Amino acid sequence: MNTISNTAKTRLASLKHNIEEARNSFLGYPVSKDFDYDELNPFLKYPINNLGDPFEDCTYKVQTHEMEREVIGFFAKLFRANPTNYWGYVTNGGSESNLYGLYLARELYPKAMVYYSESTHYSVKKNIHLLNIPSIVIRSQENGEIDYEDFENTVRMNRHKPAIVLTTFGTTMKEAKDDVSKIKNILKNLAIQDHYIHCDAALAGSYGAFIEPRIPFDFKDGVDSISISGHKFIGSPMPCGIIITKRSNRDRIATGISYIGSLDTTITGSRNGHSPLFLWYALKKLGMEGLRKRYQHSLETAEYCKNKLNEIGINAWINPGAITVVLPKTPFEVKQKWQLATESDISHVICMPNVTKAQIDEFIYDIVNSKENVEEEELVFEF
Amino acid sequence: MNTISNTAKTRLASLKHNIEEARNSFLGYPVSKDFDYDELNPFLKYPINNLGDPFEDCTYKVQTHEMEREVIGFFAKLFRANPTNYWGYVTNGGSESNLYGLYLARELYPKAMVYYSESTHYSVKKNIHLLNIPSIVIRSQENGEIDYEDFENTVRMNRHKPAIVLTTFGTTMKEAKDDVSKIKNILKNLAIQDHYIHCDAALAGSYGAFIEPRIPFDFKDGVDSISISGHKFIGSPMPCGIIITKRSNRDRIATGISYIGSLDTTITGSRNGHSPLFLWYALKKLGMEGLRKRYQHSLETAEYCKNKLNEIGINAWINPGAITVVLPKTPFEVKQKWQLATESDISHVICMPNVTKAQIDEFIYDIVNSKENVEEEELVFEF
Repeated sequence: MNTISNTAKTRLASLKHNIEEARNSFLGYPVSKDFDYDELNPFLKYPINNLGDPFEDCTYKVQTHEMEREVIGFFAKLFRANPTNYWGYVTNGGSESNLYGLYLARELYPKAMVYYSESTHYSVKKNIHLLNIPSIVIRSQENGEIDYEDFENTVRMNRHKPAIVLTTFGTTMKEAKDDVSKIKNILKNLAIQDHYIHCDAALAGSYGAFIEPRIPFDFKDGVDSISISGHKFIGSPMPCGIIITKRSNRDRIATGISYIGSLDTTITGSRNGHSPLFLWYALKKLGMEGLRKRYQHSLETAEYCKNKLNEIGINAWINPGAITVVLPKTPFEVKQKWQLATESDISHVICMPNVTKAQIDEFIYDIVNSKENVEEEELVFEF
Repeated sequence: MNTISNTAKTRLASLKHNIEEARNSFLGYPVSKDFDYDELNPFLKYPINNLGDPFEDCTYKVQTHEMEREVIGFFAKLFRANPTNYWGYVTNGGSESNLYGLYLARELYPKAMVYYSESTHYSVKKNIHLLNIPSIVIRSQENGEIDYEDFENTVRMNRHKPAIVLTTFGTTMKEAKDDVSKIKNILKNLAIQDHYIHCDAALAGSYGAFIEPRIPFDFKDGVDSISISGHKFIGSPMPCGIIITKRSNRDRIATGISYIGSLDTTITGSRNGHSPLFLWYALKKLGMEGLRKRYQHSLETAEYCKNKLNEIGINAWINPGAITVVLPKTPFEVKQKWQLATESDISHVICMPNVTKAQIDEFIYDIVNSKENVEEEELVFEF
């Protein structure tokens, strides 16, 4: 290969500049920016492909399956999975992880009804549409958590069908967390034996184990699969996700698809082998304790942000254990500068581990000094 | 973040060594190894996310949508799409591209039957299962191309249903190419007006426009969408793919999913923004002419390989315009060293642009000097 033209070089430089500018000033996206994977740059020279199941042998050897298995093992432990009955893989993001969980659920219970709250991420609705499963949306409470009464009443009217419940552990706007124990109890009371619970823990799954008091969401609490994002709390140059499920469920799927003569139980086929390496590297750097510290820092920053907003008379609040500060819509110029997502009349600041008190102070300063000019509602792309 | 332990460092070094070794010696995978994206290393510092439709505005600005649109435009032109009626995005690989094509088709014709040949990549069967659409497998001819007679007879018995046809432009083992004009004629003869043709051109799509004599496969020939892989002929550190479709079809989908309050017509949601940048960079380096040269080099190497094999009495052959040399299964040690995929009694050498005549000579030498020991059949992961 030769080289690229000077025009192309200039465009690259300008892209880099714009991306850097945009990265430096957002407070409204659940994306960590403080990662450093320079040591892994040499791996970009190789066509790495984690094709197929990371727990199976593969003929293509330019892969990082071993590291991928360790990443899966780390989170399986964090999510209190049975050490002899878990499975998973690193996906291209939360959407694919949720798709896999719902796919497993549908294969196990083809005649089931799916239940999820109205605060669920929009990609779940896309997934359900893709998988062609009937579903019912449940009301949310004011704080964003699923309305357990509405859930119970709705399931009661569909007791003849198996239930697939998609719980959210950290909703997009308010970081609300559905309590899996309560869901589980309701299903028990209604004697729905055929059920499957998938937990979408995209952002909060990475620190869910450290939240005090604990909010039930994991395998011990009764879920069948959990999905998290890798590029959110941990941070990664490209979007990635993790799906952890019970090995026994995955095995039942594997039998189901064996007629196609393939051992590949993943959705994607060819798979990114760099992202498992990024996650492995980050976990080697952090360890369990580093992850806990990251969460505690975020928690403190969120508390600080909420207090500062309250001090200037803004009605900001935080769900228990959350790192997301919910506030009324901010003036347009503030929203633009800090790239804040808004939904109807609320907005939020997500205190990712890279967010500092100095940034919060600047944000508060901007609000105090802005002219009042709250913009109209718009359709936004949610993370 | 602090640093990783010495043990972790050693493991990284050993991974790099193993990956390099494995990369250097394969002839059996459709993966280019001669890419050089060092100039893009600085972009690994940023959490790039191409969230949503690349042709729509997005609030998250750490993205490469502009480059992505140019990549789509390049291939839309190569595939002779109507310049005012195309759309697409960069996916995580061929599987997702095919899933998108089939998803579009299902949305347009919910009661359709899917037809595809038995030589189709296994991921298509996974996709069809995921999408929950009925399908019929059509026989292949000896050379791997779809059996048009069997296709015609099968469709004739299902004339009451819309037809979704998945054609393959370059099958996994023999690089056979289904002729879209013939498919189109059969549908016309049977007066099946409601039909959709998706072309899986994972490997050969990148050079399909340069094949002489031309083999019909693109928009002018009558397809509704085309998928190709980015990490195969062009080369990329991580798997990626491209889906190109008619804008009008995508618009009909967009209406269909608007009830979820999202403008996101992609499957994934959060999307890799590095891979569009790799592809853009490669296309800037190569241009249309560079791509053509890459193909011509591959074609010559394949011809050279076939002749050399014939000279030593091995019955090797090539489909018209293909860069894949089909041969009987090789002795085990040869298969292992060159990482050759096998299926029943055949194997293949894929003459990717990085393959040299010197490597072919070494391969021939290995065959001549090996002890005869052809191994048993096994299940393999196909690219």
